[in-house]
Amino acid sequence: MDEAEVSGAAWEAQQDETECARTELPPPGRLSKPYLVRTELEAILDDLDEGDRVPSERELAVRFGVARETVRQALRDLLVEGRIRRQGRGTVVSRPKMVQPLSLRSYTEGALSLGRIPGRILVTWEDIPADADTSRELGLPAGAQVMHLERVLLADGERIGLESTFLPLTRFAGLRDNYDPTTSLYAAVRASGVEFASAVERIETVLAAPREAALLECTTALPLLLLHRRSVDDHGEPIERIRALYRGDRIAFEAKLGK
Amino acid sequence: MDEAEVSGAAWEAQQDETECARTELPPPGRLSKPYLVRTELEAILDDLDEGDRVPSERELAVRFGVARETVRQALRDLLVEGRIRRQGRGTVVSRPKMVQPLSLRSYTEGALSLGRIPGRILVTWEDIPADADTSRELGLPAGAQVMHLERVLLADGERIGLESTFLPLTRFAGLRDNYDPTTSLYAAVRASGVEFASAVERIETVLAAPREAALLECTTALPLLLLHRRSVDDHGEPIERIRALYRGDRIAFEAKLGK
Repeated sequence: MDEAEVSGAAWEAQQDETECARTELPPPGRLSKPYLVRTELEAILDDLDEGDRVPSERELAVRFGVARETVRQALRDLLVEGRIRRQGRGTVVSRPKMVQPLSLRSYTEGALSLGRIPGRILVTWEDIPADADTSRELGLPAGAQVMHLERVLLADGERIGLESTFLPLTRFAGLRDNYDPTTSLYAAVRASGVEFASAVERIETVLAAPREAALLECTTALPLLLLHRRSVDDHGEPIERIRALYRGDRIAFEAKLGK
Repeated sequence: MDEAEVSGAAWEAQQDETECARTELPPPGRLSKPYLVRTELEAILDDLDEGDRVPSERELAVRFGVARETVRQALRDLLVEGRIRRQGRGTVVSRPKMVQPLSLRSYTEGALSLGRIPGRILVTWEDIPADADTSRELGLPAGAQVMHLERVLLADGERIGLESTFLPLTRFAGLRDNYDPTTSLYAAVRASGVEFASAVERIETVLAAPREAALLECTTALPLLLLHRRSVDDHGEPIERIRALYRGDRIAFEAKLGK
């Protein structure tokens, strides 16, 4: 299976669809060929280890007795979900997705607790006037200066996220003097005497814009998880506003819900 | 702007991209043309009401003094994010996304609390042998029978989600007698004397498979939020396993994080 097979033909097929495919209800998923192929393919992957080669599209089509297009669709889904990944001209089994608990912890703490080595690449560090949403969320007058820090998030050296943090400049100007932006911002904020008390996090999904795709080393056809966070301290004072994008094929989030 | 303009050309451009676009770091987003166009476009939308017509691609390109391709990209992003939607041959401002708190409440309660009228369309109701994951999560022996209920979730009549629920058959066979599958399943489970105590919910993003896209009346290029939930009762007994897909352009989830 080469790249064109997955990203070309399957995507091309979509161009012909109208936005609203008001069709008759299709038959239940359990009985359909794509469902059966998907299930058998998953069983094959379960028996393989990370990095093992996935049988070719042609091989699988013969083995399942279905059209290559049906296999292609299943492989494309597994690629988007991060279950398999391309390596050279072939396709191999991916490492499982990183499942990060939704919590007030920093990215650094979260990654470490999952046994991954966190890292960051600084992309942008600038002082800018806040836009309307940012000044409202940070409780600042319109147009007040904010510090904007944009970083690529790494796990074991792999680019998995792109995070933009906005902080009130007057409160955190001191970071300029001694903060290393490739380390945890939360640790630096805490070291300045500010405690994170609570946050509201909104989770959406978007496709990567071209610039974001380049920074995350993915295509603009990959769905991303978009997290918006607003954190406040013990006094209810806003600390930060974050807009973070995570590669949908490399990370999932988990929440524990109670009464 | 007609449909072909947004879904055709913009998507086509992606087909040429390689998966890993290892480019030089692009310039900071704030200074780039796409960012500026996006910001100005959002300002225009902020001044419009739901259902108002969005100026055409041509009009916007002239107004901003940029290439039509730049405007097209921004419109495509706003379409995927659900900020605008197609209506006939034109494009109009969408109703804001439904922001649903992550909680143990049922979909019905969640939708009602947001002022939306919940509804469901039954797609599948069957007794089937559990697959490996389902039997493990429900604490059942391999191959035990489970009740599978697949429903399209509606908000004010609009298809926003597709939910598959798996319940241990021996425990919930009684639902067959008096449960109306277009109503809240949680209410029926509670009425049978079972209390939801806690759940673990995993949030991922995927693209819609063709069957799912047909049921959700969207394209297979629309990113969806995929939620996996496992709920247990006061005694730690598993109640259900859920796999739910939500249209990324119509819904977002929100979590409150504390210490």
